[in-house]
Amino acid sequence: MKFNEPIAVTEIAAFIGAELVGNKDLQATGINEIHKVTPGDISFVDFEKYYNASLNSAATIIIINKKVDVPEGKALLVLDDPFSAYVKLVKRFRPFEPATKAISDTAVIGEGTVIQPNVFIGHHVRIGRNCIIHPGVVIYDYSVIGDNVIIQGGTIIGGDAFYFKTRKGQELKFDKMESCGRVVIENGVEIGAGCTIDKGVSGDTIIGQGTKMDNQIHVGHGVVIGKNCLIAAQVGIAGKTIIEDDVTIWGQVGISKDLTIGKGAVLNAQSGVPSSLAGGKIYFGTPALEAREKMKELAWVKRIPEIWEQLHKK
Amino acid sequence: MKFNEPIAVTEIAAFIGAELVGNKDLQATGINEIHKVTPGDISFVDFEKYYNASLNSAATIIIINKKVDVPEGKALLVLDDPFSAYVKLVKRFRPFEPATKAISDTAVIGEGTVIQPNVFIGHHVRIGRNCIIHPGVVIYDYSVIGDNVIIQGGTIIGGDAFYFKTRKGQELKFDKMESCGRVVIENGVEIGAGCTIDKGVSGDTIIGQGTKMDNQIHVGHGVVIGKNCLIAAQVGIAGKTIIEDDVTIWGQVGISKDLTIGKGAVLNAQSGVPSSLAGGKIYFGTPALEAREKMKELAWVKRIPEIWEQLHKK
Amino acid sequence: MKFNEPIAVTEIAAFIGAELVGNKDLQATGINEIHKVTPGDISFVDFEKYYNASLNSAATIIIINKKVDVPEGKALLVLDDPFSAYVKLVKRFRPFEPATKAISDTAVIGEGTVIQPNVFIGHHVRIGRNCIIHPGVVIYDYSVIGDNVIIQGGTIIGGDAFYFKTRKGQELKFDKMESCGRVVIENGVEIGAGCTIDKGVSGDTIIGQGTKMDNQIHVGHGVVIGKNCLIAAQVGIAGKTIIEDDVTIWGQVGISKDLTIGKGAVLNAQSGVPSSLAGGKIYFGTPALEAREKMKELAWVKRIPEIWEQLHKK
Repeated sequence: MKFNEPIAVTEIAAFIGAELVGNKDLQATGINEIHKVTPGDISFVDFEKYYNASLNSAATIIIINKKVDVPEGKALLVLDDPFSAYVKLVKRFRPFEPATKAISDTAVIGEGTVIQPNVFIGHHVRIGRNCIIHPGVVIYDYSVIGDNVIIQGGTIIGGDAFYFKTRKGQELKFDKMESCGRVVIENGVEIGAGCTIDKGVSGDTIIGQGTKMDNQIHVGHGVVIGKNCLIAAQVGIAGKTIIEDDVTIWGQVGISKDLTIGKGAVLNAQSGVPSSLAGGKIYFGTPALEAREKMKELAWVKRIPEIWEQLHKK
Repeated sequence: MKFNEPIAVTEIAAFIGAELVGNKDLQATGINEIHKVTPGDISFVDFEKYYNASLNSAATIIIINKKVDVPEGKALLVLDDPFSAYVKLVKRFRPFEPATKAISDTAVIGEGTVIQPNVFIGHHVRIGRNCIIHPGVVIYDYSVIGDNVIIQGGTIIGGDAFYFKTRKGQELKFDKMESCGRVVIENGVEIGAGCTIDKGVSGDTIIGQGTKMDNQIHVGHGVVIGKNCLIAAQVGIAGKTIIEDDVTIWGQVGISKDLTIGKGAVLNAQSGVPSSLAGGKIYFGTPALEAREKMKELAWVKRIPEIWEQLHKK
Repeated sequence: MKFNEPIAVTEIAAFIGAELVGNKDLQATGINEIHKVTPGDISFVDFEKYYNASLNSAATIIIINKKVDVPEGKALLVLDDPFSAYVKLVKRFRPFEPATKAISDTAVIGEGTVIQPNVFIGHHVRIGRNCIIHPGVVIYDYSVIGDNVIIQGGTIIGGDAFYFKTRKGQELKFDKMESCGRVVIENGVEIGAGCTIDKGVSGDTIIGQGTKMDNQIHVGHGVVIGKNCLIAAQVGIAGKTIIEDDVTIWGQVGISKDLTIGKGAVLNAQSGVPSSLAGGKIYFGTPALEAREKMKELAWVKRIPEIWEQLHKK
């Protein structure tokens, strides 16, 4: 998420009550997660094991819970609870704005686009030309939709990221991360009925050009789907996973978070994917194997009684 | 479900056309399923194998299809078709009331709660303070929602129980149970987009305080989810199952009906759960085993070719 | 899909720019897919391996990409790209008509039917008597719903078929088939919350009389479900599959396209079905086997360590 205008790091420090260490003249231009930061961004880190990744990232300003050496040209904002400080920033600079009507006056809708009844379009949404948005669709604030996009009925674009910090011993154990990312849907995409596509925590969830999605697909926060993918019904893709171009995913497949599925991969129905997969191959099973291997495995399982018999004949 | 005021058992008997046996002076205070009855409740039983459980339950009045010995202080309502009699009572005392507007005048909505556009809120719904109900959400009659609850777009709260009586030989084989239970969502709960949470048949479906649910989760009638649970996308939980506190359920898990998942259990993605699971452990697979056992099993399967080879080398 | 009135094959040929071969006096009465055509229909074929099936079908007029011998009494419309020609016909004779209000004036709704708020009912929809359509339901144009049907909140009836032609080398790889079929829901059906039931490509998707469906079920284009089936939550049924009468499908089952599931079959939860199944049996697993066989297989897998041990003791 980018701020409307740069904000002095001193102002940020004062707002969240942090000790400012390092370059005090910096301007922050946005907020982002560690894997998506660009120069000018504020990021946060609260686990020692991620300190290095965070300090060496492109982020210019890092909210951190320990005073460590400041990398050249950066600033640290030191305080006890970086997560809560980050949430405070999101709430300050991307506050939730309740709607006053079903289609916000701040939404921009292109020529030739049809918006059917009972659709919700939030603040600052942009929709391109010649789209069809079917009844019951919900498009949260700041979503961006290209040209020639079709969204079938009841699909929810831009719901909050499912992202919480566990606080042991608290009566309410999970603190909500306020998400400030967007959903970006490129040209020529079709999304089926009853899908849910969450916004990114602070970066974007992206559906690439020409990709076609069937019904009841769940796309988690910050997922990036490439161009010309084909995704069948009831597939679930967890947060921040990358699906490269030309991937085919058949029905009810589940893909875990933070993975990469390589270009042109094919995932057979009901597969469960716990780790990244190379492109250009066909996969099947839970946990997913190359389909050929999985089919061999299934054939071997059927031979166990034969093995038993041979063993006992000897 | 509790009646607005107590009703004489004689009136009930006359209304459903049952023979009244036992204590004729009783007052019925509500209707409930056998596993949730409290004194004063009417319950019903139509299978001989459940007679004892029913007669020995807390229910004060039992609709039954056979004249049996009446337990001390109770009353039986004897007729041929207890199911239909029960449905008749539900329709009489909790009739479906068509809405006249999208947000019922009988709904009570707390201070600071934001109701976004295109939301439906039925009769007698109560929503607490500082909630956000996102666009397209449907909240059926009598649902109860606590404070600081967030419900993402398109989620359906309080749909009818999926509960039918099979009538062999009928042209329409399944008779619908009219459900009169509620959905109760406690404080600090977040429910993702596109979820469906059914009301109880006559008791309540409960989502415990602080529990966080991702998108496209199905919660069946009468399910009770404890406090501070974390439930990932596309999970399905069948009717009347109990999820204790602090349980974590990863994506696409399916849990069968009438089970108990113990406190602190973790269910890995895509697991299928046909029987109750002890708390404090990690599970995986269909049917779900302890994850460690399941991983060992998967490793053994991979060794079948090696076993074959050794067998044939000898 | 049937035309409002017959159209001369010469007019069709001129409109799509095809060479007309064979009987030039024919009248086309409708458009349909090869597996559903009746006399008078136009069908299309663009793969040589399907030529025979297409030419020998009941279709009277066939759009084809090669000049072949014309069967007696039929006509061929020869051009390079039958798919695009077919889409052009659908767009001409069943064009998308944007709604001007949430419930179309052309919809016919029977006596005693309750339409709750926030429902969308498209053009030319017919709904029978004594139905309840719960809030947030979307019913696309031309859907047909019988008497005594209940549709729970947020369900989407009649979304477009998920059907594309792959065009290698195009920037947008998938060309959309415009679907002109309908969804037909027979008497006494109940459909749960958050379901998605797609229209047929050119024939009908049918839910048979008395069938009961739970929440979040996906039914693909052209699926035909028989009478008195029971389908639990989160089941997915892919395009054109036939579910015969009295079938029971438990939660999260996935069924592939173009299959037949025989009368009275029972599919246990989470099964994955890649091929047709005979009726009257119980199935389980992915790929689904008879449940008894699958349970034996699972038992054998548990005995692998024992086999290993015996092998090494010898």
